[in-house]
Amino acid sequence: MEASVSKSSDDLAEAGTEFYRRAWVLGTSGNFSKMLSRDPMRISITASGLEKGRLDDTSFLELDGEGTILGGFGKPSAETSIHLTIYRAIPSVGSVLHTHSVWGTILSDKFFERGAIEIEGYEMLKGLSGVTTHEHVETVPVIANSQDYVELAREIERVISKRPDIHGIYLYRHGLYTWGETVSEARRHIEIFEFLFEVLGRQLRTA
Amino acid sequence: MEASVSKSSDDLAEAGTEFYRRAWVLGTSGNFSKMLSRDPMRISITASGLEKGRLDDTSFLELDGEGTILGGFGKPSAETSIHLTIYRAIPSVGSVLHTHSVWGTILSDKFFERGAIEIEGYEMLKGLSGVTTHEHVETVPVIANSQDYVELAREIERVISKRPDIHGIYLYRHGLYTWGETVSEARRHIEIFEFLFEVLGRQLRTA
Amino acid sequence: MEASVSKSSDDLAEAGTEFYRRAWVLGTSGNFSKMLSRDPMRISITASGLEKGRLDDTSFLELDGEGTILGGFGKPSAETSIHLTIYRAIPSVGSVLHTHSVWGTILSDKFFERGAIEIEGYEMLKGLSGVTTHEHVETVPVIANSQDYVELAREIERVISKRPDIHGIYLYRHGLYTWGETVSEARRHIEIFEFLFEVLGRQLRTA
Amino acid sequence: MEASVSKSSDDLAEAGTEFYRRAWVLGTSGNFSKMLSRDPMRISITASGLEKGRLDDTSFLELDGEGTILGGFGKPSAETSIHLTIYRAIPSVGSVLHTHSVWGTILSDKFFERGAIEIEGYEMLKGLSGVTTHEHVETVPVIANSQDYVELAREIERVISKRPDIHGIYLYRHGLYTWGETVSEARRHIEIFEFLFEVLGRQLRTA
Repeated sequence: MEASVSKSSDDLAEAGTEFYRRAWVLGTSGNFSKMLSRDPMRISITASGLEKGRLDDTSFLELDGEGTILGGFGKPSAETSIHLTIYRAIPSVGSVLHTHSVWGTILSDKFFERGAIEIEGYEMLKGLSGVTTHEHVETVPVIANSQDYVELAREIERVISKRPDIHGIYLYRHGLYTWGETVSEARRHIEIFEFLFEVLGRQLRTA
Repeated sequence: MEASVSKSSDDLAEAGTEFYRRAWVLGTSGNFSKMLSRDPMRISITASGLEKGRLDDTSFLELDGEGTILGGFGKPSAETSIHLTIYRAIPSVGSVLHTHSVWGTILSDKFFERGAIEIEGYEMLKGLSGVTTHEHVETVPVIANSQDYVELAREIERVISKRPDIHGIYLYRHGLYTWGETVSEARRHIEIFEFLFEVLGRQLRTA
Repeated sequence: MEASVSKSSDDLAEAGTEFYRRAWVLGTSGNFSKMLSRDPMRISITASGLEKGRLDDTSFLELDGEGTILGGFGKPSAETSIHLTIYRAIPSVGSVLHTHSVWGTILSDKFFERGAIEIEGYEMLKGLSGVTTHEHVETVPVIANSQDYVELAREIERVISKRPDIHGIYLYRHGLYTWGETVSEARRHIEIFEFLFEVLGRQLRTA
Repeated sequence: MEASVSKSSDDLAEAGTEFYRRAWVLGTSGNFSKMLSRDPMRISITASGLEKGRLDDTSFLELDGEGTILGGFGKPSAETSIHLTIYRAIPSVGSVLHTHSVWGTILSDKFFERGAIEIEGYEMLKGLSGVTTHEHVETVPVIANSQDYVELAREIERVISKRPDIHGIYLYRHGLYTWGETVSEARRHIEIFEFLFEVLGRQLRTA
């Protein structure tokens, strides 16, 4: 993969424009990254505090695997340690995307005590990498939110080591982390989860 | 019709852009086709795995009536057999469109056991080809979802042969198939059904 | 007014693009008109069966006060008699707009037996021409739908003659008619009513 | 700050376009201002009665701290006194934005008797200036609506003097006032509040 990945972050900027339009990264919420090379690890990640609907070449930093800044502008996102943890925990990951949506927030509220949102029986699940039938049960762990991002990153590492088959994690009343081999796959996962969160969220009230 | 149909699939690409904006084909869900000629049968259909919001000339394949590839790029949609079945079952059909929406998914859940969504008394029904009054009752059969697309195609054929007057079929927790004499008519049918699904879905909770 | 009204229907086309984006004229629903001169009466009105999101110069007909075609393309909207009735009934009207929305449809269902949707106490009411305080009570009569547009037009005339202070009428499970001195004012009335319909519609379920 | 603030109101116009797209300033609702200099006080504010989705250089007036017109076009917004009051009450404020949304209106209805909307425990709260943890409790006072804007301005002054830590005030069934050091910060506050209002509003019905 390393050879073919462009250093340009146009694909992350485009995802930002679309997610902003859909109200999944309002305010300056959300953050996006992609891997530039795995060995040595180099990632491109959004700088902190930017509006995600209008990212450009000056909106990203290049970091190594320890989070040291190698280039770019501004301060890296406060949640950089979570991104790096996910890249380390799942070797196939080439992009990590994080969004905050209304329906996700509502579901995380509803399912926090149960520990996870479980989604089963929908054709849209096949949009998640490796899922080949609607009969699949997808588990999205919901974990406590915290301002201690190092501890949050450790908790995410624990969750992934127990359930390496998951495609995303929800931080309670905060937002979704998902990932993919490419930016395009990670973006597809965002869309799939947001679609299913809205279906489940709306059904909470028609049951 | 054959003489005047353009081989260009710009009209399908435009429908994709609009449906994506409205969140009816998130992820890489949905697929679209149009007939290029009926005898011999030639159709243009979206390749598998593409984002439907940005289709272009390289996003379509030309197939014959058996699904043999005659030109174009990529792999045909896994649901090609459903498209071909609809073209064979209803001679006037010139386009088949398939979308996945939140409200459609919710309604299919609610009405699966009853076997169909029935819609009656709305002026918008007049947007369906041949319907001339709001007093019309439109039946949208809801059939079980399956990963066996050949069997699904057969079930769709059975449903259409019993109810040749319908304008669409819903696959349970999966999505809508509708059709029309032209891409424009099929697209209008998508919009009419999605509007009515949202009305009915929202009313489930105000009753 | 006559002297300054442009014969161009760009303002109606622009309204169509915006209403389509907001899903208020899906399918080929809705129709729009503006007065070109009052004496003798000349109006420009959308042709029948067009998608309202992409109107252009070829989408409109010029009619006299009897509905006779003086120029333009296609067939006038089937609801032309309703437009002409409103122009005759309220001398200050310079534009009539008709849309079909999800929330309007739901409210018309809920309030049909009561005969009207009553809206009171919202600041947004001040967007209706002549309303100067949120303490205003706006009445939107809800009348039975019919395919007999001549009879519908007569019923609308009766309603307006009894309540000349109203700003709009709802056809049951069909759509909203509103009007204004200019296209811009009529368009503002659509936006105000749709906003308030959504507020009331959503509150049906939180009460 | 004074030296670096552009007199151009492009940033307010851009906010208007985005808010209109999201249906937060339908009709001609809403009004926006920014400070040009504090001493002597000079502000730029939207003229009355304009559509907020298409503001340009001719849509703004320059006023002094008493509301006297120094330049620009049209009549200043009827709510100018509220803007001036906020600039005087909070010395750090460089922009004041006012919007009308469906979810805000619904919440103001629900919480009017309690006197305030309280929001606690959401990560998105960190988008409000100075808030550093989701454990923050944000209070949005809900005050009675009135057509006496001078009295409304006085009430807003009283509320701010008691609670100088708040980021916004809701006028009952009317709309949100929020502010920030810059247009960009005030706009972020609008987005944060609207996101949280929608979460709370939707949860009224899933509880």
